[in-house]
Formats: sequence, structure tokens, C-alpha cells
Amino acid sequence: METGKVNKFKPECFIIDVDGVFTDGSYYYSVEGKVLKKFGPHDNDGIKLLRDKIKIQTITADHRGFEITKKRIHTDMNLSVALVSESDRLSWLNKNFLLKNCIYMGDGIHDIEIFKNVGYSIAPNNAFYLVKEKADFVTKTDAGRGAVLEACLHINDKFFPEKVKKFPGDL
Amino acid sequence: METGKVNKFKPECFIIDVDGVFTDGSYYYSVEGKVLKKFGPHDNDGIKLLRDKIKIQTITADHRGFEITKKRIHTDMNLSVALVSESDRLSWLNKNFLLKNCIYMGDGIHDIEIFKNVGYSIAPNNAFYLVKEKADFVTKTDAGRGAVLEACLHINDKFFPEKVKKFPGDL
Amino acid sequence: METGKVNKFKPECFIIDVDGVFTDGSYYYSVEGKVLKKFGPHDNDGIKLLRDKIKIQTITADHRGFEITKKRIHTDMNLSVALVSESDRLSWLNKNFLLKNCIYMGDGIHDIEIFKNVGYSIAPNNAFYLVKEKADFVTKTDAGRGAVLEACLHINDKFFPEKVKKFPGDL
Amino acid sequence: METGKVNKFKPECFIIDVDGVFTDGSYYYSVEGKVLKKFGPHDNDGIKLLRDKIKIQTITADHRGFEITKKRIHTDMNLSVALVSESDRLSWLNKNFLLKNCIYMGDGIHDIEIFKNVGYSIAPNNAFYLVKEKADFVTKTDAGRGAVLEACLHINDKFFPEKVKKFPGDL
Repeated sequence: METGKVNKFKPECFIIDVDGVFTDGSYYYSVEGKVLKKFGPHDNDGIKLLRDKIKIQTITADHRGFEITKKRIHTDMNLSVALVSESDRLSWLNKNFLLKNCIYMGDGIHDIEIFKNVGYSIAPNNAFYLVKEKADFVTKTDAGRGAVLEACLHINDKFFPEKVKKFPGDL
Repeated sequence: METGKVNKFKPECFIIDVDGVFTDGSYYYSVEGKVLKKFGPHDNDGIKLLRDKIKIQTITADHRGFEITKKRIHTDMNLSVALVSESDRLSWLNKNFLLKNCIYMGDGIHDIEIFKNVGYSIAPNNAFYLVKEKADFVTKTDAGRGAVLEACLHINDKFFPEKVKKFPGDL
Repeated sequence: METGKVNKFKPECFIIDVDGVFTDGSYYYSVEGKVLKKFGPHDNDGIKLLRDKIKIQTITADHRGFEITKKRIHTDMNLSVALVSESDRLSWLNKNFLLKNCIYMGDGIHDIEIFKNVGYSIAPNNAFYLVKEKADFVTKTDAGRGAVLEACLHINDKFFPEKVKKFPGDL
Repeated sequence: METGKVNKFKPECFIIDVDGVFTDGSYYYSVEGKVLKKFGPHDNDGIKLLRDKIKIQTITADHRGFEITKKRIHTDMNLSVALVSESDRLSWLNKNFLLKNCIYMGDGIHDIEIFKNVGYSIAPNNAFYLVKEKADFVTKTDAGRGAVLEACLHINDKFFPEKVKKFPGDL
């Protein structure tokens, strides 16, 4: 999985799919429609570790739940979040990023095509099983249980080993 | 499990029980009664893959939660959903479908009798254990975690191998 | 676990703790306090199987969530539910039932003392581990995932083998 | 894990992180922001067992969800809860407690530094994996599934063996 290509690149951006990565992918419906999403613990600790070393971009295709997503990801975690449909995702990413210099984390079958275009790909442990088979790295932590933190620690160790670590306990 | 009968038929319809297949079967109650259901990720990707190859029909016995179900299944996923009590389900299905030409996916003990009447039966990994024993195919994915996507990929591979696949990454 | 005492009695009543047996025991809080409980699938199928063979009584100590519990257990499932604090539970049960002729299903440490007084005791798979060690029977299904259905099927097989079974598929 | 230091001290205080210990760490968001947290079963039974033997203090860094936390922890469970940011936690604890005489239970990476300063540290089974490696004791029960009860029983057995136990069934 972790091929030689990894050694060749210094990542410039970490792009993270929201649903199924920061959440376990579930949507809670009432008679009003989609009303709740569940966001897990620990991930903000990972974002804080990486945010001065690499640009971080989040992306979602969920237009009906976008206002919920913005509350967590943008308002509370202070991250940029783009609303792009799954069919437009690859072209949108290519327009906005040099993908071979990017790390991408996703959980769905549409993400497999993106994995092929980026420098390094990550899937959470509870991603759909076909997606896990194609990722360069699979966290042992589930999405919505700290998978983004584990991904951030992994990126930090693998691509920024020279930087001083800032966590208590020298994590 | 996968018997010779499978080879004989070309499925015309995929009938899917909603609760416990698109969801994990749980109901969230407030003092007002049943107010929330949780729908999982990935399943809509499977529906999109199959919907131009086979008729798709969903069915539910949950009359108290029917307005919630309609929001997700009909309004947001654009699927037909029928409200039929469990005791009437088999007769309703026989009236509306030639069951031996149908695939059926369900998770509850009343679905066992239906399994006997259809051409091919599927249960999600977290169906009640007695139901799993009677299904032709059991997904390795849990209901509410992508079980319908896995079922759709399985159906596509098994019954429509000649059709061009449309997923990115040639799934 | 399943001792000789079992053979001696014909159960007259099945008493079921609500929280942690019909639910996984969790409480959802908003700024208003306890506002939601999650009830699982399948259990009503078990209740229907047993309700003409044995008296069924449910019990809860959760006074703050009692109106939620009543909506599910009494209004929607048509079961009797008693609100009794945990410290009064054993004396209340002794006043209202001949416990040695009862089956009791519970998940919490206070239920251990009750297990000693009833004819037969059942714990769900995800009960607190000390409780499982003391039960006559532990379901393989989790509470909130069909544990009550499995308990009802077990009771039906063990104590009412002579009665005609009514499930489709001759479960 | 359980080192000789343990034998030397009689704990005066049990300090418990709220999110990820009394809950599984998840936050439920609506368009209004963080609106729900899920609290698990059994933990109040543990608090009752210990509260006349040792001071119990809870702590949280979640200012947006603090009113929800107070409803469960303070109003309903009658525990003291302090709102302290993660970066201030260690200094706040040092100002208010003689940490070497305290037991601390936490689940996040910031808790690792606190573990080094207290007399005895506990992590729930579903804590972030790096945290579990540093704890003196890891419960086999998940946070939000009774981890605090297991921790309290463990503390009771280990540090207060002489006291008369009060649970039914002589737990």
C-alpha cells in the first residue's frame, strides 16, 4: 500500500471528505427531513497539530445537510468547507489543487477515483470495504471515533518528522 | 446458500425492506413518540448503480414513522415506498409482483417466509440471526453502514455481468 | 448456569427492565435535559409471540424519562409499565408477584439481587459484565438490537414447547 | 501498568473528564449547532458507590455543550462539574488539587500529560489508542456503556477494600 511515490512528495494540502470521515456517515431524519449529524471526538486535536504545517480543506457533497456541516466544520472548528457534488468532485479538485501534491481522506466509492489522482490517500477503518482496499493508509480508528486525529498524527510522523511536536506527552 | 435456483432467473425487481436495511432498525423516541430514524451512508450509490437495470421497490410496516421514512426514501432518494403491515406483506407482494422473479432484502423474522417465495434473498450482516441463516446472501456490511450498496454491487456482479459498469475506478 | 431449578417451574410472568433491555441504556440530553431514547428492532415480534402464553410486565426506574418510555412501551407496544426506583424494586416485585414463578430480564447491577429471587433470569449480551455472570441465560443479541425477541424465542422453546408456534417459517 | 506507586497512596479525589468518559465523546449537531449528547447506562451506580468515600470532581473543556453537560452531570447526577479549556486543564488541576493524591480518568491525548501528574490514571476501553497505552488501568467497558461504573468498582476494590460494600448481591 505505502508505495515509493510517497517518498517523493512533500504534501501541500490535506483534503478531507466530511461525511463518513468526521462523522460515521449517518444522517438522522425527522418528519422535517435530515436534522442531525453526529460528530466524533478527538479530531480537532489532530487539526490543531497540522494546521500550521499544511493547508487543510474539507469537502462535502451533502447539500441538504450543508448548514449542519457548516456549524461543526466551519463555525466550531474554523475549517474551510466546500460543497461540491460527487460527480463534480474530481474536476473541482483538479481546478483548485495540484492533486499530486495533496493528501486526500475519504470513505465512499466515488473517492476511489480521487485516490488515484492524489499523492497519498487515507481511509478510515469503517470506510466501505472496497475503498479501504485502495487507500495508501487505513486508520485503525473508526470515522467518528477519532479517525481524523489518527490520520493527522500519521501525516505528521510521515511527512513532517523534522518539526517540533507540540503535544503534551510528546505524542 | 447460493443454490442452483439463482442461475435460472433474471431478476425483474429488487424489493427492499426499509427499517433494519437502510437503517439499523432503531427508533428514537421523545415524549412526542417516534421522532427520528438514522439512515446510513453509501446506500444511495448502490441505488444509482442499479436503478436503470431493475425496478426498485421499498416497503415498510412502520406506520408511525412513515412520514420520516418518506422524507428519506421518497423525497431525498426518489424511491417508491409502500406502507404494508407485516401480516399483509406476503399477500401484498404476491398481488403486486411475480415474486419468483424478484430479489428481496430484509432483516426481520417475518421476512423469512418471504425469502421462501422470492428468487433470491439477501440479509444485512446485523439482521436477526435466524434471518441470516435463511438468506441466499448475507452482506458483510451492517444495515445502516452501507449494506444496501454491498447488496447492489453483489446483484450487479451476479445478475448483470454483461452491462458496462459505471462507477469510477471500475468497481 | 441453567440449573435444575428451571425444570421445576412453569413461568407465570415475564418481567422486563426497560432501559438497557429494550434500549441500549443510553439517554440523549439537550439543554432541556433527557429528551430522547433509542428503541431497537425486532422486540415487538417477541412480545407478540409470548403475550397470550404468559403475563408480561415491564419496569423502569427512570422517572425523568418516564413519559418517553410510556410512549414506546405502553402507547405503541401496548405493554404495562411500572415506575419503581431501583432501591424499591425488589420489595415492589415481591408485593406484586410470586417471584419464584417469574422470569426476569435485566442489565444493571441492582438486577443481580432480583436474579436470586426469580425462577429464571436473563441478561442481554451487552449488560454490565457482572450481571451477565449471574444470569441463567444470556442472549447473544445486544439490548436494542433484538435481545428481547431472542429472550422470547428462548422462553417459548424452553417453557412452552407444547404450544403451536405461530411464526412464519416455523421459527 | 499498575506500578508500585499505587500502593503508596490513599486517593483523596477521583477526577473524571466528562466527554468520552461519561459519553462516547460524540456531539450531535443540527443547524443550530451542538444540540445533543448521549450519556450511557450504569455510571450513576458507580458514583453512588464511591461518593461517601472519596471526593468526586468532573471536568469538561466543551464550552459550547456545557449547558447540556450540566443537565446530566450536575442537575441529574448531582456532581460538581468544572469548565476548563484543555490547555489550562493541568494548571487548573494543580491549583485546585494535590494531584499525586488523585485518581484521574480521561480519554483524549491531552489527558496523557495529566496521567503523569496524578497518583493513578484510568482510561475507558474506547479511549484514543495512545491514551490507553499510558493509563494505569483500562476498563474493559466502553465509555458510554458503563466505563465509569467499572472504574468505580475497580477503585473500590483496590483502594477501599476494608469498607463494607453496599451493593445488592455483594458486588
